[in-house]
Amino acid sequence: METVNILVEALPYIKKFHKKKIMIKYGGHAMIDSAAKSSTARDTVLLKYVGMKPIVVHGGGPEISRSMNKLGKEPKFIGGLRVTDQETMDIVKMVLVGKISTEIVANIGLHGGKGVGLSGKDNLLLKACKRSPQVVVNQETGEEQMVDLGLVGEIESINPEILDVLTENDYIPVISPIGVDDKADTLNLNADTVAGEIGGKMGAEKLIILTDVPGILKDPTDPGSLIKKVTIAQVKELIEDGTVRDGMLPKVLTCISALEKGVKSAHIIDGRIKHSILLEIFTKDGIGTMITP
Amino acid sequence: METVNILVEALPYIKKFHKKKIMIKYGGHAMIDSAAKSSTARDTVLLKYVGMKPIVVHGGGPEISRSMNKLGKEPKFIGGLRVTDQETMDIVKMVLVGKISTEIVANIGLHGGKGVGLSGKDNLLLKACKRSPQVVVNQETGEEQMVDLGLVGEIESINPEILDVLTENDYIPVISPIGVDDKADTLNLNADTVAGEIGGKMGAEKLIILTDVPGILKDPTDPGSLIKKVTIAQVKELIEDGTVRDGMLPKVLTCISALEKGVKSAHIIDGRIKHSILLEIFTKDGIGTMITP
Amino acid sequence: METVNILVEALPYIKKFHKKKIMIKYGGHAMIDSAAKSSTARDTVLLKYVGMKPIVVHGGGPEISRSMNKLGKEPKFIGGLRVTDQETMDIVKMVLVGKISTEIVANIGLHGGKGVGLSGKDNLLLKACKRSPQVVVNQETGEEQMVDLGLVGEIESINPEILDVLTENDYIPVISPIGVDDKADTLNLNADTVAGEIGGKMGAEKLIILTDVPGILKDPTDPGSLIKKVTIAQVKELIEDGTVRDGMLPKVLTCISALEKGVKSAHIIDGRIKHSILLEIFTKDGIGTMITP
Amino acid sequence: METVNILVEALPYIKKFHKKKIMIKYGGHAMIDSAAKSSTARDTVLLKYVGMKPIVVHGGGPEISRSMNKLGKEPKFIGGLRVTDQETMDIVKMVLVGKISTEIVANIGLHGGKGVGLSGKDNLLLKACKRSPQVVVNQETGEEQMVDLGLVGEIESINPEILDVLTENDYIPVISPIGVDDKADTLNLNADTVAGEIGGKMGAEKLIILTDVPGILKDPTDPGSLIKKVTIAQVKELIEDGTVRDGMLPKVLTCISALEKGVKSAHIIDGRIKHSILLEIFTKDGIGTMITP
Amino acid sequence: METVNILVEALPYIKKFHKKKIMIKYGGHAMIDSAAKSSTARDTVLLKYVGMKPIVVHGGGPEISRSMNKLGKEPKFIGGLRVTDQETMDIVKMVLVGKISTEIVANIGLHGGKGVGLSGKDNLLLKACKRSPQVVVNQETGEEQMVDLGLVGEIESINPEILDVLTENDYIPVISPIGVDDKADTLNLNADTVAGEIGGKMGAEKLIILTDVPGILKDPTDPGSLIKKVTIAQVKELIEDGTVRDGMLPKVLTCISALEKGVKSAHIIDGRIKHSILLEIFTKDGIGTMITP
Amino acid sequence: METVNILVEALPYIKKFHKKKIMIKYGGHAMIDSAAKSSTARDTVLLKYVGMKPIVVHGGGPEISRSMNKLGKEPKFIGGLRVTDQETMDIVKMVLVGKISTEIVANIGLHGGKGVGLSGKDNLLLKACKRSPQVVVNQETGEEQMVDLGLVGEIESINPEILDVLTENDYIPVISPIGVDDKADTLNLNADTVAGEIGGKMGAEKLIILTDVPGILKDPTDPGSLIKKVTIAQVKELIEDGTVRDGMLPKVLTCISALEKGVKSAHIIDGRIKHSILLEIFTKDGIGTMITP
Repeated sequence: METVNILVEALPYIKKFHKKKIMIKYGGHAMIDSAAKSSTARDTVLLKYVGMKPIVVHGGGPEISRSMNKLGKEPKFIGGLRVTDQETMDIVKMVLVGKISTEIVANIGLHGGKGVGLSGKDNLLLKACKRSPQVVVNQETGEEQMVDLGLVGEIESINPEILDVLTENDYIPVISPIGVDDKADTLNLNADTVAGEIGGKMGAEKLIILTDVPGILKDPTDPGSLIKKVTIAQVKELIEDGTVRDGMLPKVLTCISALEKGVKSAHIIDGRIKHSILLEIFTKDGIGTMITP
Repeated sequence: METVNILVEALPYIKKFHKKKIMIKYGGHAMIDSAAKSSTARDTVLLKYVGMKPIVVHGGGPEISRSMNKLGKEPKFIGGLRVTDQETMDIVKMVLVGKISTEIVANIGLHGGKGVGLSGKDNLLLKACKRSPQVVVNQETGEEQMVDLGLVGEIESINPEILDVLTENDYIPVISPIGVDDKADTLNLNADTVAGEIGGKMGAEKLIILTDVPGILKDPTDPGSLIKKVTIAQVKELIEDGTVRDGMLPKVLTCISALEKGVKSAHIIDGRIKHSILLEIFTKDGIGTMITP
Repeated sequence: METVNILVEALPYIKKFHKKKIMIKYGGHAMIDSAAKSSTARDTVLLKYVGMKPIVVHGGGPEISRSMNKLGKEPKFIGGLRVTDQETMDIVKMVLVGKISTEIVANIGLHGGKGVGLSGKDNLLLKACKRSPQVVVNQETGEEQMVDLGLVGEIESINPEILDVLTENDYIPVISPIGVDDKADTLNLNADTVAGEIGGKMGAEKLIILTDVPGILKDPTDPGSLIKKVTIAQVKELIEDGTVRDGMLPKVLTCISALEKGVKSAHIIDGRIKHSILLEIFTKDGIGTMITP
Repeated sequence: METVNILVEALPYIKKFHKKKIMIKYGGHAMIDSAAKSSTARDTVLLKYVGMKPIVVHGGGPEISRSMNKLGKEPKFIGGLRVTDQETMDIVKMVLVGKISTEIVANIGLHGGKGVGLSGKDNLLLKACKRSPQVVVNQETGEEQMVDLGLVGEIESINPEILDVLTENDYIPVISPIGVDDKADTLNLNADTVAGEIGGKMGAEKLIILTDVPGILKDPTDPGSLIKKVTIAQVKELIEDGTVRDGMLPKVLTCISALEKGVKSAHIIDGRIKHSILLEIFTKDGIGTMITP
Repeated sequence: METVNILVEALPYIKKFHKKKIMIKYGGHAMIDSAAKSSTARDTVLLKYVGMKPIVVHGGGPEISRSMNKLGKEPKFIGGLRVTDQETMDIVKMVLVGKISTEIVANIGLHGGKGVGLSGKDNLLLKACKRSPQVVVNQETGEEQMVDLGLVGEIESINPEILDVLTENDYIPVISPIGVDDKADTLNLNADTVAGEIGGKMGAEKLIILTDVPGILKDPTDPGSLIKKVTIAQVKELIEDGTVRDGMLPKVLTCISALEKGVKSAHIIDGRIKHSILLEIFTKDGIGTMITP
Repeated sequence: METVNILVEALPYIKKFHKKKIMIKYGGHAMIDSAAKSSTARDTVLLKYVGMKPIVVHGGGPEISRSMNKLGKEPKFIGGLRVTDQETMDIVKMVLVGKISTEIVANIGLHGGKGVGLSGKDNLLLKACKRSPQVVVNQETGEEQMVDLGLVGEIESINPEILDVLTENDYIPVISPIGVDDKADTLNLNADTVAGEIGGKMGAEKLIILTDVPGILKDPTDPGSLIKKVTIAQVKELIEDGTVRDGMLPKVLTCISALEKGVKSAHIIDGRIKHSILLEIFTKDGIGTMITP
């Protein structure tokens, strides 16, 4: 009886998001172990079956670093960004596209969904150019330095055709954040940015970013200080007063950018919690922070 | 959290019946009060939103009798069947099509579904001919008598075109059991039979008949003696040994006929229980009797 | 030979209205006896077969009053409008949807057309709200009084989706003037208004209103004073100078409103004349009054 | 009123032949003067507008002979068939395709139809091979002689694709009886045969051959001896007993062949009578001979 | 190996013009002998198979004059334009539509293309009106005279529907420059103009005019003085300074008009050179003159 | 001029294979250096642009071994098959899907094609099960041993849906030979087998296997002894008499299997030769061995 009451309670959400595109960014934390991977894939398939159009973008930082270590190559970061030489780029590509994406796609298939893995190279989905060297503040010394991160790219244009074809035919696209430049070379992209930009381009209803924190916290040391709902204007103030900072800052900026491109709401939620995507979509209060225009 | 676990538990059923047609026969008992009507409509809309194609057939005996009484006309039954003269036929038609069907359709609309009421006259959906007089046993005297029930019909042919057009365009057809003969006159049809025949013609996955008993009972006086699952062969034995008798008999015969025409399973459930349709579809054991080929 | 000459003479009209939507309002008078009903249905089917897209709206005042009398309930009118309490509303609904509409639909089927009956509840075709109490002049005493007509509605919005689906698939929709409010309750609507509003919304070519007078008469007592053709501007003058008054006034206002919403011509014709619809469409002079923008 | 009664009388025929293909063979006699041409074109357009799919095949013997005479070239026939050398073939092609077909097409356009002229060369509609020399009886001397008629062809295969594309898009194809061999050279075909073969291939409902006689006559000298209706079996007897002979024979054989390929009825009618096509289709008795399987 | 290298070299052009419409005007010179005709047809089919949408317009001046001579009728020109009386018009129509067009279409079929011949009469493709008498300078005496050229027309409107249907279904339309006036009568049109106007209407990528000169020559007496590429502005100067004059002038004006209507480039090439169309499209420099906006 | 003659010579092949599916197996040898990779991609794009539907399957043995060596893991083969433990499987997957496939896809994009990379996991394209241990003859000692190759799979079923969607929308699928079992785990598949099986399932016209030998050689030591054309029957004899042996044997068996499933011809060609695919398709004699049923 319980079962059915709850189904009935979910109906308003199912109706509201019927045939709407839902961009989901899986971080490494939704991929901790095979149970978590299977669970996240199943939740994504559930969204599809109850009528939404989920599109997945995944990251994979920890896995990349593990692979680099195996190859005796030390991962190097400046200002939180991975320095990417050609060898690193090869590893990034192999891990993201060859390992993580295929695993997500297979898990989606296992649960009855029609997953298809894509990188930015497929039909030139993500055209990118190399990021120009940037001034980065050395967080230890406080000194500024010009940094060339190597094969790290910025999105120049998105070609959504393949996403349209796939979503119209009931597939769930799974996108690796890999860009292609005009010489067919590969560039490393930020997965959050990719999710936000594609969400904006595709007219997604929601952008959901899975992280390893509960959402935006009034006091980052107090998980109980979660801000449940916030507008763009309000969150900009939170940036200015320093509440939103460090790793949360780029995520919030991605959300703002996606909202400004037409996404209806952006969500930063805790991917470590089981069924976090469903809890955010199908309950009144959700579990993370929702940002609205 | 509960909410979401249960959604996840429903996924296998949602997948299994994806894009499948589900014939539902509402009896008068699912229409006792406006809360029950609203609830049944909402459950039907939920089926649609999670990907199935529900088609509703409704009855309305008690309401018809009430209307006849208001008009100072006494309802008359022989062998459980309503004797239908022209005036009665007019009342039947007005109550079923004008009152009950419009109410179901409006309730479906209220819950976000796209209901459309149909009778057998719409695009000649249900061609029928008058039933020939039949031998009926007077249950009091035990005597046999030839009875002409008047404007009671038998289905000659079903023209499913309008149902195809509507279900392909995401509508929920709501069908009144009214037939049309070759002079455009109206005939009274049995709603269970209409549901079973249309289910067979349309290749429905399920035929669900809402009644006011828990299902087939081993001992009709003991609601605890419910038979959960039974095959055609087994239920035929139950007919022969008299377990299935009286009002249950025609329902079971309708189920057998639908199964023989290709329906995958037939269900006799208790329409008085809230969310009985959902409980039958989304739980492992269901709540009534399931008959399979 | 005659036969064929006439077919050839009809060709220019057949061409002119090819694939055009023709809104037809059947009044009670096109439904006097079964011969008239059959004839009007056949004419409607003919329009469909020679390439037009007829959409029917029907009324049913006399039949409703007859049914009320049978139930010992006296029909009550104020300012020409039916006072509609809940019981009356039930009767209105049953008569219009359950009796008149099914009969029209069956007659269309009998003549080879694909009729489908709809009320404003089907896919919420006619969303309405209760009319606020209005000042009505008592025609006997000349006194003004505030009158609440009860469950009489005004159209708030039209959802033409189901009409598009049906007409594109060669069906002839037959619409009962019943509205639905936001609580799924029923409201009594004026059939002329419904025909005019739907005609405007659907971009109909023609609105044809069948009445029991020859059209607009210069002198209402002289059937020979028929005005054959009139523009909006001219008919507004006829209203001002009192030529158009009483029962003709709301019909003319409906025509003006429909023309202003894009209908190409509105026709008020005598539904008592056999084949009046065809005579109006397929002959140079028509038989009633044509109003053009 | 007359007008409309007759439209109503035509309805059963309009319904019966709705969306059906009607093959019409225009002989030279439906093209005597520009009034006749215009009238025949208008009748064809009428068929289209009331829902049928007419396909026209035309002949043009007299016009060809006139053009040959102008060029100082004497037409030559053996056994009723035109001896066709290369120069004659050029004239045949120019007259049929360049003159007669364009005129029919323009007349169809003038009456609001969408005519498109085709010859057997368009998308290789009519693949043909040269007829082998045949034994012909000299009708004067009674002697047999082997005759090579030159560039006279027999249909090898029909490629109906272009006809399907055109009829589905509401065009009226107008076909000149010109075949193409496998070297892209032109062959002279018999127009009746072309009409019959295409009718069979396209699954036409009717084949209507316009001639300059009333139909099959019991006594060819008595126009009053018209046979209205005849089956294949009966007409074969009429062939055997010599009633069907001379110029009527090949027409009847064409009809039999078309019926055997699936055409529902074949009609031989008098093209000199105004509106003969319509009279045959829209009246109970028709005006010529109808042959049925 | 050579073969394949060249295919690979053609790839950029194949890509660039993929699914683009290419208007080709065949002059009499591409139709000198059957080898030339076959070759031009094959080249056109090749364009189709590698993904373009060729549309052919043909002329036929020399052939028309030959036919007139055969009939003992002297062709007459004033100011380079054919004086067209009714008899001449009949010959023009028969030669263009009945002879030249059918031959092109058959050759296209022979090489595996799906050619369909059209004149301006088919679905009223080219509506025209008679040219008003014009002042023409007698080139011998220098005197001006008012000249009525007879049945020579000017395009009033183009109805591209049939061209859309055919090109979307992979046919190659072959158009004879014959117009139709509002009485269904025939008018003689200039083939270059027809090609240019249709090209503009259809949004063609290229207009290619096959002539018997290498293109626009700086010095008309020196074939080596070919101008390879020129803009509208530049070619207007060439008109003003007299470089473009005589027979080249109307062709260039047609090109300018087509470019101004949206055609991307216009080409005047030498139709006497084998494969001239392909050489112009698939080589970097082409072989004639390309005019661009 | 040359250019164009050759295009014209290619026309018969372009026509013959129009809209036909062409399965191409790229071996490691078509991927030696970036020039070869670019060239092979461009040739594939050319096939698409001239109207065929290429589907690519790629291998990658040498690259996999290189990656294993980098990770300090020694590749191990038994009977020519790679022994695949879990760690090796991860490397295989990352190299094939993450490195080689993305590179091919990017190169296709660079040349204007719409490449999309797929593995057997995408929509469960290649369902596989683990190969059971097999008897393998140790080629050095001649001893037989039971060998379990680990995560090496056999194709159980192919789900071509995603390939249909992609090829119908003008994409070029690029498939990595990775299978998925019913637990969503990965299995290593033979690329030749994958190409052959998919070719058979999709009804491909051709299967082209790029290798590093000229084709089937009468005398494997003499490249001049190439067999140009051979039937299934003949090649079976070549297997029996030992002409086809070693590495060539599985390739030929794959070809035979594909032909028996309906592929029209199978080709074994030298992928080291520039434009080998085009040479095989567009020249009369081809450059390798063609096997026909």
